Amino acid sequence: MTQQAEYDVVVLGAGPVGENVADRVRAAGLSAAVVEGELVGGECSYWACMPSKALLRPAIARADARRVPGLRQLVGGDLDAAAVLAHRDDYASHWKDDGQVGWLESIGADLVRGHGRLTGTRTVTVTGPGGEERVLTARHAVAVCTGSRAVLPDLPGLADARPWTSREATSAPAVPGRLVVVGGGVVGVEMATAWQALGSRVTLLVRGGGLLPRMEPFVGEHVAEALSEAGADVRTGVSVTAVERPGGTGPVTVVLDGGERIETDEVLFATGRAARTEDIGLDSVGLEPGAWLTVDDSCRVEGSDWLYAVGDVNHRALLTHQGKYQARVAGDAIAARAQGAPALDTGRWGAHAATADHDAVPQVVFTDPECASVGLTLAEAEAKGARVRAVDHDLAAVAGSGLYADGYRGRARMVVDLDREVLLGVTFVGPAVGEMLHSATIAVAGEVPLGRLWHAVPSYPTISEVWLRLLEAYRG
Amino acid sequence: MTQQAEYDVVVLGAGPVGENVADRVRAAGLSAAVVEGELVGGECSYWACMPSKALLRPAIARADARRVPGLRQLVGGDLDAAAVLAHRDDYASHWKDDGQVGWLESIGADLVRGHGRLTGTRTVTVTGPGGEERVLTARHAVAVCTGSRAVLPDLPGLADARPWTSREATSAPAVPGRLVVVGGGVVGVEMATAWQALGSRVTLLVRGGGLLPRMEPFVGEHVAEALSEAGADVRTGVSVTAVERPGGTGPVTVVLDGGERIETDEVLFATGRAARTEDIGLDSVGLEPGAWLTVDDSCRVEGSDWLYAVGDVNHRALLTHQGKYQARVAGDAIAARAQGAPALDTGRWGAHAATADHDAVPQVVFTDPECASVGLTLAEAEAKGARVRAVDHDLAAVAGSGLYADGYRGRARMVVDLDREVLLGVTFVGPAVGEMLHSATIAVAGEVPLGRLWHAVPSYPTISEVWLRLLEAYRG
Repeated sequence: MTQQAEYDVVVLGAGPVGENVADRVRAAGLSAAVVEGELVGGECSYWACMPSKALLRPAIARADARRVPGLRQLVGGDLDAAAVLAHRDDYASHWKDDGQVGWLESIGADLVRGHGRLTGTRTVTVTGPGGEERVLTARHAVAVCTGSRAVLPDLPGLADARPWTSREATSAPAVPGRLVVVGGGVVGVEMATAWQALGSRVTLLVRGGGLLPRMEPFVGEHVAEALSEAGADVRTGVSVTAVERPGGTGPVTVVLDGGERIETDEVLFATGRAARTEDIGLDSVGLEPGAWLTVDDSCRVEGSDWLYAVGDVNHRALLTHQGKYQARVAGDAIAARAQGAPALDTGRWGAHAATADHDAVPQVVFTDPECASVGLTLAEAEAKGARVRAVDHDLAAVAGSGLYADGYRGRARMVVDLDREVLLGVTFVGPAVGEMLHSATIAVAGEVPLGRLWHAVPSYPTISEVWLRLLEAYRG
Repeated sequence: MTQQAEYDVVVLGAGPVGENVADRVRAAGLSAAVVEGELVGGECSYWACMPSKALLRPAIARADARRVPGLRQLVGGDLDAAAVLAHRDDYASHWKDDGQVGWLESIGADLVRGHGRLTGTRTVTVTGPGGEERVLTARHAVAVCTGSRAVLPDLPGLADARPWTSREATSAPAVPGRLVVVGGGVVGVEMATAWQALGSRVTLLVRGGGLLPRMEPFVGEHVAEALSEAGADVRTGVSVTAVERPGGTGPVTVVLDGGERIETDEVLFATGRAARTEDIGLDSVGLEPGAWLTVDDSCRVEGSDWLYAVGDVNHRALLTHQGKYQARVAGDAIAARAQGAPALDTGRWGAHAATADHDAVPQVVFTDPECASVGLTLAEAEAKGARVRAVDHDLAAVAGSGLYADGYRGRARMVVDLDREVLLGVTFVGPAVGEMLHSATIAVAGEVPLGRLWHAVPSYPTISEVWLRLLEAYRG
């Protein structure tokens, strides 16, 4: 027998994005069901942000300590990999979701375990663990928050080689002696950094000319240099043509386009993401299964008055924090519409518009050195036709940098809109820049004019004094 | 024979503040002489910011490393104090000013070595190292940038006990076995932190009820707790009544108001600062020698059309970065007036108004944990009569904090102007908050409304995510 239930809002997916949509609509007094077939808490909690940063922090902290005279002689040795992995396990909650389930209960949302599929307008059918079906009807909105998954390329032998994706790379129970990482994006460089520091001999294979191609070009150059110095073998401009692991066990052989064969203990493919929308019933509402979902700034799917797509699935910015931001906006928009608000605040930077998705997406890459950017790169700003100027400064030339790390290397760039004299983008690369990023995010999202930024005095001697140097360089 | 020379601008004092005044007026094409009787580069370069932070960074970095699982087992041991002191010597340029002299030359300012005194309107007389005199006349302005000096209390025995001030504390050639620090302000807590980490047994004596009394009360509580855990003996509510060091050599005895006697190898008095204006000829222009100089927002001395006082001497904010900020403002104002600008931009946040001195003074204290604040504390905002609310958040409850440091402890506060919904002040205490401060400084100086701050998304999982938590707590 099929159970039926009605809610104001049905949320598909209980990652951070789904959780935040539920939180906002519950705060507005709406009822909400959250459907999840895996662990409540999602990719971020178990196979991404949390475990990856737990693996990376010791690598970064040791690198930092090695650059401090008087301390460096203590930290020449190896990390205690077992302690790092145990700590990582703690941060991944040992892949149990009790804590997150408790949080959902605390906000009064109903968790429905099982695989959810749209089966018509405002209707979701959930197939439970035992095959039982439950039909959930939404009075106001269904929010698809199913995220994304790793995509493996179509290579001979790959399917049988049990390659790592981001999930295995963040949850591996032991340190492989040798690790080949394919892909120079965020997952690739972060995992190369972590496992190299934990004792693996890492080979990083990148098809393009550089690492982190979505950031300013100098960022990837700094990371490549540091990874090489840490002992990793970084190769750009190479493609993998086949992978061999006879019997699916033992060493893996990675074959390159030039014919070279690299033997390794594990191989990680960090080569892209796809929308997790292939089996959620999109065809029942006239949409294409497997596609990214196109939404307006309130995260409502174009052409629909009840279907929302929030987080990775809408392909606006595949980042946990940006998905959570969208969730707050979408949740508030759903609630306002449900309550018959005469007009939503969907103008630029309005409460119901995820404007930052276009203009102020921040990202920190937790490598050594750290990478941090917000807004547009110079190339992106130019492509938009803006009249812009990039202003660069050597982070090593800031007093606070040298005091933070002997031999500090890094760089900063701000992209200035010359017509409005506001910042369109800011990029930092260097030790400890991760926590500097939010200054740039506030400047960009706040559209604080350069004339006012002169009055925002960086405290001396912090690395943040680069802000003064950038302003001076702009004044020229 | 007395030499004479005329310049557009005469600057008294070649610390960072005097250097920046000279830089700005030179950039405007004015001629400038800079008078200095000690080292070019000033207190900051040789006896404050630079050497103190070189001493503190190893202490902070070791404390940070000890909070990282997998790394902490490497850093149980002692710092290499000799290496730290040698690095400190490098950062103090071995108390030689060749580099700074070269910089002054590079901007085309004339350095005049000797003690400078005002000897009338727009006139400075410099007594050189050999007693020779030189009279400098300023066509447009004289800028007093002589800074401040440590003040010793009037205590029995103190003068003969050769106490440390901030100068000796930052430049000491060896680690004292025992060190008593008197005073719980920035110098006191920073030097207690550094020397305790370098191997001294430190006793910190504070007259008031807590440390860092100019910041939010919880800041000093965190620092006191951490200093105690690091092994220092922190005592509040105690006064020193006498100091004994017979013959001025050997151990020092510090006598407390309760009669207790503490024997130590050195004693640092960090109990206050006075204007370095006692011997610069203020009486020749109708001002009181030794007084702080009262200025308007362009840093021009009240009642004068040619005399400026910039940096510590005007007592607006005794911080290097704030003095440099004033120097940029004052230098530009001097140049604009010299060039007959019809009107200066002296309105709130104008180019010729040091508005941030009132509303957005930032400060980082480089202790473990770090302390960082900008703008007004709750008490200061209330005293001004603003309708305000303080919003607090436990920094340990942010995911990024726990990933940064196992057992992270810290706290954040924002003080909201309820009428305008902008921030009047922000305070952070906790590991790694130093580089977070500039986000708050931009928010406060930029007067970015809370509604817009919701669009400034903190990158996950950084400690900066506390911004989101503070906004959520405010929304309530």
